[in-house]
Amino acid sequence: MKVTETLACFAAGFDLSSAPGEVRHQAVRSLVNWAGCALGGAAHPAVARAWQAFQPFMGIGRASVLGRPGRVDAPHAALLNGISSHVLDFDDTHLGTLVHPSGPVLSALLALAQHQPMEGRRFVDAMIVGIEVECRVAQGVCPEHYDMGWHVTGTAGGFGAAAAVGRALGLDEQRMAWALGIAATQAAGLREMFGTMCKSLHPGRAAQGGLGAALLAQAGFTSSTQAIEAPRGFAHVLSRQPHLADTVERLGERWALSTNSFKPYACGVVIHPIIDACLALRQQPGFDAREIASVSMQVHPLVLELTGKTAPCTGLEAKFSVFHAAAIALVQGVSNVGQYTDEATQLPAVVALRQRIEAHVRPDIREDEVHLAVTFTDGRTVEYHVDHALGSIERPMTDDDLSAKFLALADGVLPAHQVRTALDGCWRVEGLPDVAALAEHMTPA
Amino acid sequence: MKVTETLACFAAGFDLSSAPGEVRHQAVRSLVNWAGCALGGAAHPAVARAWQAFQPFMGIGRASVLGRPGRVDAPHAALLNGISSHVLDFDDTHLGTLVHPSGPVLSALLALAQHQPMEGRRFVDAMIVGIEVECRVAQGVCPEHYDMGWHVTGTAGGFGAAAAVGRALGLDEQRMAWALGIAATQAAGLREMFGTMCKSLHPGRAAQGGLGAALLAQAGFTSSTQAIEAPRGFAHVLSRQPHLADTVERLGERWALSTNSFKPYACGVVIHPIIDACLALRQQPGFDAREIASVSMQVHPLVLELTGKTAPCTGLEAKFSVFHAAAIALVQGVSNVGQYTDEATQLPAVVALRQRIEAHVRPDIREDEVHLAVTFTDGRTVEYHVDHALGSIERPMTDDDLSAKFLALADGVLPAHQVRTALDGCWRVEGLPDVAALAEHMTPA
Repeated sequence: MKVTETLACFAAGFDLSSAPGEVRHQAVRSLVNWAGCALGGAAHPAVARAWQAFQPFMGIGRASVLGRPGRVDAPHAALLNGISSHVLDFDDTHLGTLVHPSGPVLSALLALAQHQPMEGRRFVDAMIVGIEVECRVAQGVCPEHYDMGWHVTGTAGGFGAAAAVGRALGLDEQRMAWALGIAATQAAGLREMFGTMCKSLHPGRAAQGGLGAALLAQAGFTSSTQAIEAPRGFAHVLSRQPHLADTVERLGERWALSTNSFKPYACGVVIHPIIDACLALRQQPGFDAREIASVSMQVHPLVLELTGKTAPCTGLEAKFSVFHAAAIALVQGVSNVGQYTDEATQLPAVVALRQRIEAHVRPDIREDEVHLAVTFTDGRTVEYHVDHALGSIERPMTDDDLSAKFLALADGVLPAHQVRTALDGCWRVEGLPDVAALAEHMTPA
Repeated sequence: MKVTETLACFAAGFDLSSAPGEVRHQAVRSLVNWAGCALGGAAHPAVARAWQAFQPFMGIGRASVLGRPGRVDAPHAALLNGISSHVLDFDDTHLGTLVHPSGPVLSALLALAQHQPMEGRRFVDAMIVGIEVECRVAQGVCPEHYDMGWHVTGTAGGFGAAAAVGRALGLDEQRMAWALGIAATQAAGLREMFGTMCKSLHPGRAAQGGLGAALLAQAGFTSSTQAIEAPRGFAHVLSRQPHLADTVERLGERWALSTNSFKPYACGVVIHPIIDACLALRQQPGFDAREIASVSMQVHPLVLELTGKTAPCTGLEAKFSVFHAAAIALVQGVSNVGQYTDEATQLPAVVALRQRIEAHVRPDIREDEVHLAVTFTDGRTVEYHVDHALGSIERPMTDDDLSAKFLALADGVLPAHQVRTALDGCWRVEGLPDVAALAEHMTPA
């Protein structure tokens, strides 16, 4: 099966008008979500330290690191935006492979758009190609690949960035195949890194490496054209049990973007139905978090396995503590980045409430479902059931939800007058004559 | 077993005076060999195309690409020297792991030496550390890792470059461990790429990535400190059967450099005893290649498995054809880079002779051994036996051999007056007040 060449042929020959309107709109939604995450993560020390490390070696700066003043060369912009857009664990997730698709693809593509003129239509075209190739490569090796210890956003991400940039550069099939081959032989990223800055380095390196792969291929740097499927190629070396039919099946008919999902809350996704329930309960007349005697919730087994931490001390731990997440949602009525800081874990009202929360595993509860019961000091008990969490396929975030998320993340990062322009620019990306202007709107003066 | 921290502790706390003189001298020999290979590979299209691809993004150029005019930033110098030093398949080999150790380590280290002042003693110190860490990491996963399809020079190379640069930067143990962790999560390189330009991209990327890993760690970019040994770390994810005791056993007592070997001939190493025999036969009084009726050789099984191509059409194929290699050695009396070009494969005298050469596999012949019999048109048969090929551990290349190899590779690449200065500078590296001067000698004006 000629997997690499099939993907190269798809990427080089793609026709944007062949993609359903729903897929094109989902691409735009992914851009809004990615840009918000990158802006929100811009001030993180991981971004500042990576910039500091490479500052002495940077080329002439034309490209933006969203939300930060100054300019860097395109490959370093790809690296730094890849880091910032993932560092809050708030970016998009392709359900089924667990790839966070936009970080590698958009970080590379926007950097290129600031290096050479790119119309919005071309940008969306390349973005759809990149995300499709990225998730298709992942589909051929996951879940075994992820189970082995590979952070699939790092490994598959490079293919996505290479395909998107290669598409925008107009590579022919031969060079597109080389670009994918170069991405294959640079694929890296270990799950051991979770909890360290290296987790967000993965999409950063995937973006930078994928951009470089396309540039190398454009210059005639040769690679294998069976890099994915060969016995010593990507799939067989990085997965015990590749199933590459899944990579090419109905390519150009089914779209990875259709199952791309967005997080409404800045924490582990299995906590999301619980936050939905807490926020809904809080809307009840006369609700007062100080009068809560106890909280009992019936949850999917993964909730305690992944987010069972009862007394988190850091923001990162808080993102993986269902007790903290529920408590602070009940107390503050929001579940944004500010609710998952080191300081937030020490708020007395939150610490007191999280100790009165119990979680009971029930195998018949789905991952995006929860049953919550809150008992107040006056003896009243209020129950609430969430069937599908906000952000799931069945109940996706609306465009307005995504706008609100963007505005909350950009608040204080960009000057107020730029925030709305930037958001509008993202929504109208397909009609922009030059996408570089959009990047400018997301760069503080 | 704390493998990562043990290596970090060794690298951060190394004392050059603890290394035997033989190891220090072998480091210098490795530098001579590496520099010659980089000079010889400088004109290869792989180097030119990679430079062209990244030219628009390069920072202020202070670092050399050996053998080429112009300057680039240090990370791109690491990349390009890594490519050029491996592209001829003529660089050093650590026996036992098949790592080509100097490419990643020296490409990164020399680039750093042109960015910030570095004494020769410090350079050799960091080089020994880098090569030791690189080969130690490989020892813990090979041969299974290589058998799985990993090009170990690409994967272990990043650790070597990170350790060498980290050592030269004076990283403490904590940051050295992070540097190794960052290298671990960037480890990549597939054997499927053999035969394409991506093979030499591997040491290039390892050098650039390892340099970046040390710079990131220096800036406080965090990573796992169990990156090698953790269940989802480098060894378990990239090898079916790691044996990490081999990584730390007698660290600081046994030295990887002691089993580093150098190639006298620019072709597959299993052909080397045969070339030895051909060149020796050629020295016989009255020898005339035109009078050869037939050649019969008894060889190790790997010779035909790896280099059995009877009618190579390209220089790269010629490097893996025992018939071409023997014929051209008999005809021309040398086996240097010029004997493995596309044109060389078509020389009528060589084509005619290679058809009269037979190879017979004999399981009792060792890899570095051959028995050769040449029959002339007058009926005479001359036999020659090579017990250990030149370049093997038992019969290493002498310092003079390495100088001659350097001179042949540098000839025509550097101005004549620089060639000897450069070679002398390599041999005297430990005493240099600033290694940047050495790089200057290897850069055409």
